Amino acid sequence: MSKSISDTGRIEVTYRLVCDPHEAETLARKIAYEQTVELPEHMVTDPDVLELVVGRIESVTVSDDHALASISFNPELCNSQLPQLLILIFGNASIFPGVRIVDLRLPPGLLSCFNGPGFGIDGLRHLLGVYDRPLLASAIKPRGAPLDAMAKMAGAFARGGGDIIKDDQNLVDSLTDFKKRTGACYDAVRKANEESGRNCLYFPHVSAPVQELEGYFEYIKRVGIKGVLLCPMILGLDTVRSLASQYALIMMAHPALTGSYTNSTEQGITHEVLLGTLFRMAGADISIFPNYGGRFSFSRTECNAICERLTEPLAGLNTSFPAPAGGMQYDDLPELCSVYGEDAVFLIGGSLQGHDPDLVAATRAFQDRIREYFTERLETPAQEFLPACEIPGSVRAIAQHQLIFCQDYNWEDRESIAYKPDDELSFAGVRRIELMGQHGEKTAFDLRYFEIEPGGYTSLEKHRHAHVVIAVRGIGVIIACDRCDIIRPMDIAYVAPMEIHQIRNNGSEPFGFFCIVDHDRDRPIAP
Amino acid sequence: MSKSISDTGRIEVTYRLVCDPHEAETLARKIAYEQTVELPEHMVTDPDVLELVVGRIESVTVSDDHALASISFNPELCNSQLPQLLILIFGNASIFPGVRIVDLRLPPGLLSCFNGPGFGIDGLRHLLGVYDRPLLASAIKPRGAPLDAMAKMAGAFARGGGDIIKDDQNLVDSLTDFKKRTGACYDAVRKANEESGRNCLYFPHVSAPVQELEGYFEYIKRVGIKGVLLCPMILGLDTVRSLASQYALIMMAHPALTGSYTNSTEQGITHEVLLGTLFRMAGADISIFPNYGGRFSFSRTECNAICERLTEPLAGLNTSFPAPAGGMQYDDLPELCSVYGEDAVFLIGGSLQGHDPDLVAATRAFQDRIREYFTERLETPAQEFLPACEIPGSVRAIAQHQLIFCQDYNWEDRESIAYKPDDELSFAGVRRIELMGQHGEKTAFDLRYFEIEPGGYTSLEKHRHAHVVIAVRGIGVIIACDRCDIIRPMDIAYVAPMEIHQIRNNGSEPFGFFCIVDHDRDRPIAP
Repeated sequence: MSKSISDTGRIEVTYRLVCDPHEAETLARKIAYEQTVELPEHMVTDPDVLELVVGRIESVTVSDDHALASISFNPELCNSQLPQLLILIFGNASIFPGVRIVDLRLPPGLLSCFNGPGFGIDGLRHLLGVYDRPLLASAIKPRGAPLDAMAKMAGAFARGGGDIIKDDQNLVDSLTDFKKRTGACYDAVRKANEESGRNCLYFPHVSAPVQELEGYFEYIKRVGIKGVLLCPMILGLDTVRSLASQYALIMMAHPALTGSYTNSTEQGITHEVLLGTLFRMAGADISIFPNYGGRFSFSRTECNAICERLTEPLAGLNTSFPAPAGGMQYDDLPELCSVYGEDAVFLIGGSLQGHDPDLVAATRAFQDRIREYFTERLETPAQEFLPACEIPGSVRAIAQHQLIFCQDYNWEDRESIAYKPDDELSFAGVRRIELMGQHGEKTAFDLRYFEIEPGGYTSLEKHRHAHVVIAVRGIGVIIACDRCDIIRPMDIAYVAPMEIHQIRNNGSEPFGFFCIVDHDRDRPIAP
Repeated sequence: MSKSISDTGRIEVTYRLVCDPHEAETLARKIAYEQTVELPEHMVTDPDVLELVVGRIESVTVSDDHALASISFNPELCNSQLPQLLILIFGNASIFPGVRIVDLRLPPGLLSCFNGPGFGIDGLRHLLGVYDRPLLASAIKPRGAPLDAMAKMAGAFARGGGDIIKDDQNLVDSLTDFKKRTGACYDAVRKANEESGRNCLYFPHVSAPVQELEGYFEYIKRVGIKGVLLCPMILGLDTVRSLASQYALIMMAHPALTGSYTNSTEQGITHEVLLGTLFRMAGADISIFPNYGGRFSFSRTECNAICERLTEPLAGLNTSFPAPAGGMQYDDLPELCSVYGEDAVFLIGGSLQGHDPDLVAATRAFQDRIREYFTERLETPAQEFLPACEIPGSVRAIAQHQLIFCQDYNWEDRESIAYKPDDELSFAGVRRIELMGQHGEKTAFDLRYFEIEPGGYTSLEKHRHAHVVIAVRGIGVIIACDRCDIIRPMDIAYVAPMEIHQIRNNGSEPFGFFCIVDHDRDRPIAP
């Protein structure tokens, strides 16, 4: 077996090219330049750029109706991030006619920048306490069904011995309705679990405008739901990576919109690279794909290729469960068991729910059928499984518990510094102490102490962030919104965004106040 | 002209189907069910679901090699958000072979949920002070060029009279390097503008892991850069919408990865629906697309269709600039001017930079050529153009400037409330006042005041958010991290995430303290 280029530390992409065989080499060079410098060859002469930036043609092999071009890239060009990796391997080349990514191999150094699946096959089995057989999953549907019918469905599936019940990806609500619906479904599953001693998992589908996602995830964490269904190509591959990692949730990836990439043999990205390698890098613990022979268009070979990418060694990343889905029937189970083996999730919606009007019985029937082919091993489900990153990630260093004792309006370990780093805005007689937020504390805010000498004043300014001021020493004057007010210790002022404001000390002793602001904020400007 | 279905308040999607003509109607019905209930027809019997949820076949017309199926959907199914709109119109159907979206018409009620382009054609012209001619744009390249060469390139383009200079989408850096590079380019453009009195705009490309994006955007806003280049299909369509809107920046949308949708006639989404309608809804002020006849595969008809979608009336959304790009030459300018007219941005990279070693002269030559076909009207560039949402959006109501005067540790307009809403955790003798953050204030934090009676204590708890505590009255004991410390007025304590902690009053007078926490935070749990 030849050594892969990725072992040499470069990204290796194999493109399938549909073109005149005599043009294959030219098209390969065009891709190598387009994807890196986006200039014609003759305009690139800097030897460093040629060596470090331009893609390198490793091989071009031509057959009757297509060519395969292997092009390698310097991994530094993607800056250890998924969005730029996509731009590098396929951004503009996706628009060339007849160009398709059929393989992607990444060097271990780059792969290790990604956490990958937070739970993976092992973590999920640990949570479920289910070993040595495939898992059975189903979907709550249809949209429009009454809330109690949905909750009942979830509970029945759990009581029937199902492993994972997820929302259909067309289920979506306002946060208020989401809480009601998912809360009811989760409660039904929990109740069934209490009776059975098992740990059927419930994964709600989350889709919301980006700025509202946090509310959904905070709720999910708060009630103790362990995983979610997300659509990577809808929300963005890196958005789902970030969410699953930040909230330490099991991520079941749904293939919505991926057909545009996988369907045609003459463009896009193959099934296994997109739903296998890339989804796994983005942290999918389970990757759903249309099973061959169902109502979609995947072949058995393509399905097998996805499974291989999800479970092959990949620089220490956890493995992911393949989850074939779509039109799988009760009578298909023997073949599914044989084709996919034990490390798969069989996601069966309509045909399971149509199998028996009693969903408990239907689930049991499917699960029993699976058990005919595997010797299931059950253990007590893990009560808690903490992946590496239980505490939402932050790029800031983490400060431990600390106390800063105060003496005469100075604090231990905290120096008074210049009020403003430069003098672009006018002020006088102000000292400032950064108390919290600038020393590695994990807070969304900064706490500062300011003290103005008699006769002094802060700069007259405005900014998009808000201020909260707590007066603690002496007497001050706050000017904001064309008002002028005297504030004394323990009075609190709120300065709204873009309000022109200033704080002055017209008294005869120092005026001191705490000022709390968002950690991430804009710079003040003159009014 | 027949009345569009969208005028009746429904979403109308036209799918092009490649299938046996006798199967077209069946395939259309399959799509209508797949996209909404994901169940076979015979399993859906609830009249409400049939009426309100299942897609409605409006028409199926069959021709020789394909059929056109018009299917309408209840707009409530997409919950006023882009991610779910994509799932609804194409999530699973994208995986059916031979199904392509060729038209999308949305009802005004749904469109009005989106802000669309924050600046649009009018806003951009106002900022530039350039009217009645197409705009000239170019790209800073190649990656790997020295920083000063890039800055020089940006400055020369501005001095030559260019309108917009953007980063190539393969330019990407760590935040530190990004600041250096974009700062240098922006300064060079600013300096050129100061000399010329014009307002050439510089748009850096932003691509970063989701959790780091904020740092890039905060920097951009801070230095005063007015716009960015973003790749919607790389970062996620709703992610770019959210970013452009939140930071009130001009968004130039790059078509990276869109070829997988647009290239094939047998799958995906047509050029004009994706790069026209959907990008405009996501807030693209400028939508870049490969010009016909260049090195990509778009036809002139497809380019015209994109222009039409970007500029046609769309329920009050601003219009977007079409920006043809890719292999456009100096000698193409007359034709480009005639085909695209004045409301276009000609994005010309390599051929402009290869036209004359002196980039000032090259830019001037291109701009002069354009002026041969239009009578340019110049006005003084607007110093400041505030789009509707200058202040980053928040779903919270906006509080104005306010002062809350304190009297004996009670505050005006703020009631003491129960310490915990329920008694799941044990505590005694604690009162609490929500001072800031829960009354509509635009802050990332909440400020509360707690007071513990002699002998009282807060619950022993932990949570993923941090606490900052400022003692202000009496003497308290803080237990955290297995330590036990006495704190007095003006002492400050930081409790790190997941540290088990409690605050007690072992003294004989009330112990009062401010506690600051992130506004968005998890719920405390027992240790």
